[in-house]
Amino acid sequence: MSGEALIDGRSAARIDVRDRGLHYGDGLFETMAVVDGAVRRLAAHLARLWTGCERLGIAPPDPGLLQAEIAALAAGQQRAVLKLILTRGSGGRGYAPPEPGTPRRMLLREPWPGYAAGRCEDGVAVRLCHTVPGDQPRLAGIKHLNRLEQVLARREWSASAEDAPAEGLMFDGRGDVVGGTMSNVFIVREGRVLTPRLDRCGVAGTVRAALMQAAMRAGVPCQETTIARDALYAAQEIFLTNALIGIWPVRRLEDRVLAVGPVTRHMQTLLDAGANREADRDADGTPIRP
Amino acid sequence: MSGEALIDGRSAARIDVRDRGLHYGDGLFETMAVVDGAVRRLAAHLARLWTGCERLGIAPPDPGLLQAEIAALAAGQQRAVLKLILTRGSGGRGYAPPEPGTPRRMLLREPWPGYAAGRCEDGVAVRLCHTVPGDQPRLAGIKHLNRLEQVLARREWSASAEDAPAEGLMFDGRGDVVGGTMSNVFIVREGRVLTPRLDRCGVAGTVRAALMQAAMRAGVPCQETTIARDALYAAQEIFLTNALIGIWPVRRLEDRVLAVGPVTRHMQTLLDAGANREADRDADGTPIRP
Repeated sequence: MSGEALIDGRSAARIDVRDRGLHYGDGLFETMAVVDGAVRRLAAHLARLWTGCERLGIAPPDPGLLQAEIAALAAGQQRAVLKLILTRGSGGRGYAPPEPGTPRRMLLREPWPGYAAGRCEDGVAVRLCHTVPGDQPRLAGIKHLNRLEQVLARREWSASAEDAPAEGLMFDGRGDVVGGTMSNVFIVREGRVLTPRLDRCGVAGTVRAALMQAAMRAGVPCQETTIARDALYAAQEIFLTNALIGIWPVRRLEDRVLAVGPVTRHMQTLLDAGANREADRDADGTPIRP
Repeated sequence: MSGEALIDGRSAARIDVRDRGLHYGDGLFETMAVVDGAVRRLAAHLARLWTGCERLGIAPPDPGLLQAEIAALAAGQQRAVLKLILTRGSGGRGYAPPEPGTPRRMLLREPWPGYAAGRCEDGVAVRLCHTVPGDQPRLAGIKHLNRLEQVLARREWSASAEDAPAEGLMFDGRGDVVGGTMSNVFIVREGRVLTPRLDRCGVAGTVRAALMQAAMRAGVPCQETTIARDALYAAQEIFLTNALIGIWPVRRLEDRVLAVGPVTRHMQTLLDAGANREADRDADGTPIRP
């Protein structure tokens, strides 16, 4: 059995109907991969959560408590998804938050998604979305609960079609690439690895950050930049990242067919090596402080 | 006792922790004034909810069922607030909505807010907010659950200070007025009543719509337009509207002191007259179809 939920440390399936996460999306989340009983890149997830807390002015949970709860839900799971939601809690009058508030944390364990096998190997088809995320520098990069733009973008296509794309790419109001609805995007141009800046919209993924660090350590030029639609189409390789999928090569962008190239394969190797090093470190049992 | 909640027609205080309203803000809400056992401008609230359902692709609830539930919670209440939340329900994988989904409706009755007495008469102080709402035409005008921008704006000041403002005004990326964090704004210029267009951001309020209609019927020129910061400062009168407050005259905008003028008073009279006509109609018992 892999479906289970802890709300403020207690096993429960329901929350207060007056929670501000429901009323306003007043909170944050993390979607984490559990592999062999441990969360991958837990420190990066917690660091992003802490950044989000700072931006929204929500008191972060006690790190030791949170990690104990995460460990309890991850234990014994070969592969599972752990979703953490932290809201500002219940109360307040209208938009004004209660002072002091009592944030609420929810941990949901879900089955590993049944993504079609072989996507990391063979790559995926990707479409371009019409939904344009608005600029909001104060919320850019963090993983907050206001996700209607992603829902609207994801509703643009159905997954049930025979040759349905696995993901859709979104463009900002200037026509520059932001990323996928649920993933970050990288392009390869003349041996350099590029990914969109996320200072106006988008979510700064944990795999995105891990990969940029790994690339730099391996001597592969990698940087954040502005990527216009033309640059996307001119890319030699394209790939997508997130905490659950790792790296998916893009083998088709709308009508354009791409080869899964050597840089993408190199990045997959670097990411796997990083995960293995992390697993070795976890065996030490050193607690992570965000 | 005025606090009570109905979830899908049943008395309950908790919802499924997997509701998409919590995870993504994937839903809509209405905040309604109950006066003498009936919701004010119910038809306008339901019409906006239906518009929101169409935009988000959420199946609207059965109107007769919803109205029966609203009537049950409003009955016997001299003054109360009724908040309706409609979400896409639970489920789906990630952002992709479940097909077909089962939307969830929640009705919460809350005590009438303890706003300082005399605000309609004496007017309120208003501040200018730094938080800039992003442009999102696909969500503009409707009352969806992605409200972090309003929460951030409302956190810019504390209500506990002696001479705290009652509301804050927000400006879009071009520097044009959008409205208050929880209200629509009107300005009076040379006898004309103007309010910001809401095609890129903001919520199209029920009182805003009622007032524009009433003004036109009464021969007062009234229109939607672009209102720059300078135009706001040059206004002879300013007032705020929403379903709970009705019309609040603005008597101070940051450091600028305004008189509560004749046009604002005229608008208050028109709004009251409309509410009274509506109450007479309600006595007929004719059901409202959105």
